[in-house]
Amino acid sequence: MARINDNFTKLPGSYLFSEIARRVSAYRAENPGKNIISLGIGDVTQPLAPTVIKALHEAVDEMSEKETFRGYGPERGYDFLLNAIAENEYKARGVDISIDEIFVSDGAKSDSGNIGDIFSVDNIVAVCDPVYPVYVDTNAMAGRAGEFTSEGRWSKLIYMPCTEENGFTPAIPEKTPDMIYLCFPNNPTGATATKEQLKVWVEYANRNGSVILYDAAYEAFISDPDLPHSIFEIDGARECAIEFRSFSKTAGFTGTRCAYTVVPKELKREGMSLNQLWARRQSTKFNGAPYIVQKGAAAIYTEQGKKEIRSVIDYYMNNAKVIRDGLTKAGLTVYGGVNAPYIWAKTPDGMKSWDCFDKLLKEAGVVTTPGAGFGPSGEGYIRLTAFGSAEATAEAVERLANIL
Amino acid sequence: MARINDNFTKLPGSYLFSEIARRVSAYRAENPGKNIISLGIGDVTQPLAPTVIKALHEAVDEMSEKETFRGYGPERGYDFLLNAIAENEYKARGVDISIDEIFVSDGAKSDSGNIGDIFSVDNIVAVCDPVYPVYVDTNAMAGRAGEFTSEGRWSKLIYMPCTEENGFTPAIPEKTPDMIYLCFPNNPTGATATKEQLKVWVEYANRNGSVILYDAAYEAFISDPDLPHSIFEIDGARECAIEFRSFSKTAGFTGTRCAYTVVPKELKREGMSLNQLWARRQSTKFNGAPYIVQKGAAAIYTEQGKKEIRSVIDYYMNNAKVIRDGLTKAGLTVYGGVNAPYIWAKTPDGMKSWDCFDKLLKEAGVVTTPGAGFGPSGEGYIRLTAFGSAEATAEAVERLANIL
Repeated sequence: MARINDNFTKLPGSYLFSEIARRVSAYRAENPGKNIISLGIGDVTQPLAPTVIKALHEAVDEMSEKETFRGYGPERGYDFLLNAIAENEYKARGVDISIDEIFVSDGAKSDSGNIGDIFSVDNIVAVCDPVYPVYVDTNAMAGRAGEFTSEGRWSKLIYMPCTEENGFTPAIPEKTPDMIYLCFPNNPTGATATKEQLKVWVEYANRNGSVILYDAAYEAFISDPDLPHSIFEIDGARECAIEFRSFSKTAGFTGTRCAYTVVPKELKREGMSLNQLWARRQSTKFNGAPYIVQKGAAAIYTEQGKKEIRSVIDYYMNNAKVIRDGLTKAGLTVYGGVNAPYIWAKTPDGMKSWDCFDKLLKEAGVVTTPGAGFGPSGEGYIRLTAFGSAEATAEAVERLANIL
Repeated sequence: MARINDNFTKLPGSYLFSEIARRVSAYRAENPGKNIISLGIGDVTQPLAPTVIKALHEAVDEMSEKETFRGYGPERGYDFLLNAIAENEYKARGVDISIDEIFVSDGAKSDSGNIGDIFSVDNIVAVCDPVYPVYVDTNAMAGRAGEFTSEGRWSKLIYMPCTEENGFTPAIPEKTPDMIYLCFPNNPTGATATKEQLKVWVEYANRNGSVILYDAAYEAFISDPDLPHSIFEIDGARECAIEFRSFSKTAGFTGTRCAYTVVPKELKREGMSLNQLWARRQSTKFNGAPYIVQKGAAAIYTEQGKKEIRSVIDYYMNNAKVIRDGLTKAGLTVYGGVNAPYIWAKTPDGMKSWDCFDKLLKEAGVVTTPGAGFGPSGEGYIRLTAFGSAEATAEAVERLANIL
């Protein structure tokens, strides 16, 4: 008799954004014709940049001719994209990353979930609280989280609270973790980490043999020139960190799917190269991102592509300002939205996150994300995203101000 | 100290096709200018069909306008593609599959590797021998394979030999497996399974609670009208089987990436729906195939698309005939190539597979795949694929005939 992976049965409810989608659908069904604005799931709304569109068309044309058709590509990505990433994302910031340390994929969600494959299921995992649920859920599925307790926590995970009191910056935990998930600029709080703060983590990881799983999916939204965009800007990170990056938010690729993960060659545990382990994992369970999509991604590194991408990011960051200012004026306490596309707002009168979510949906027709969905310390907050259109964002903020 | 998944350290050498690529590169470096023809990795060579190209261009244009831009899609695929699959691949053959039983993905390699996530690591796994290495390697990574022994076998796997003696059809194993990987038309042997043969497996699985993981990636190459294209043509399969399908070979999508997996709602183990487990896995660790790619895939189900796809498949199957006939004439014993794009040839004079691979590469400049790379019972065979161009295939067969 085939047995299932019973870790799945321990997962509470559904994936956060599936649950939100369910509630929105139900509300929509009951209120047909009602105009609902979503500042909930972090999905972009602006079209792909003209330079990307041009590259996609050209790549499609290449696929139509025998001479230029592409079949299986390298599992880790085409050199043209790997080189563009190494040059523009790293070398331009004084960081040396070689192309055989970069692995192109179909998404940072896949990568940050699949990376667990190369680690022992006995490792102790630390996550921020609140946190992007994928880190927690994928570790729960693998058996690293233990049991889900009545307090809404997993028994084996180390939670690192990120609260108003500590400026949403996690402190070094009391118990030493083997794997440490960090995300800056942070999803969901919008908090950032300075070089000095990351240095503390890198030194701690190197001292203890921990591995830092660094999610830098939102680095393009950093406006402060002193903030690091990559953990590899920190000395010693090549010995202890893996970095996840994505084109989803940077270039509007949420529906086009392209991302990459950097695993430095110096990163070894138990004598094994994690770069080689990840290469083995990817070459065995993945067949590369589509050629067409990789051509589109590479186009953002042309001069014109860079300008176009920048202007879309500026557009979203203006939304962030509108949300911040509007909610502050309406009397809410808000965080984030300066170096990150997420605004982390305290609910009014200490309202529970899901209650606030329901209230804002029902009274204002605005979809947010309940902070509690990101972990126990997210209770009492809601997350809003800057990825709407300018018009819809302004309208949503006005509606929220009216009911708050 | 972070520990690695030490199952990775048990894997012998590299992934088969990476090793072939390495040998070919080395040979090419030593023999610059030499014309090498690959009948090795099963990669297509013909361009995407015009109808697919048109759909891809249209989808790219949609991504360029705010009104038609697509961000995150449903993790399990867009309804337009799910409906086209249900209608054309299943209903047209008298099989009822509902769209919430179909999960669109980026590849059958990903799916057949990732499916292990939902099963207990204690399950006993049976594979054919020879076999597509992904089933074996991914189970080894998960810890289901045990130790790799000096006989070139994994201690915990059940091997089901597919040999000349049994017509390359596996027999029911002595020990009862929990998970049974079957692939028809078969990669690498090109063998097929009749409805009667599959019926035996389905009844066996239902009697024992085993789950059949049925890889039907090559069903489009079946020419015999009596052969089943799907395991769901067999009564009782909805209670015991998961089916993997791919656009890679059917529509030349090896570099465009789209596939799907069918998990029927009746399939339960330990009271849990495997459809729901897989939905949870995919919504947590995957973000859907690109919108553009899904539009391209759906185009093969238009009337014109079907004709175009058919003519490419016929083209490849003519190659298969050329290889079969040429090698037979040259004195080799060959199998497959009639209802499958793979030809399974006995090496001359009982030569070892890798020796034969090296000989054909060095003396004829033709890349094949050594049968031993697919498992112990593949020793003494080489696999050739029908996916080359007609010209290159004819030339390769002539060169092989000259040296054999």
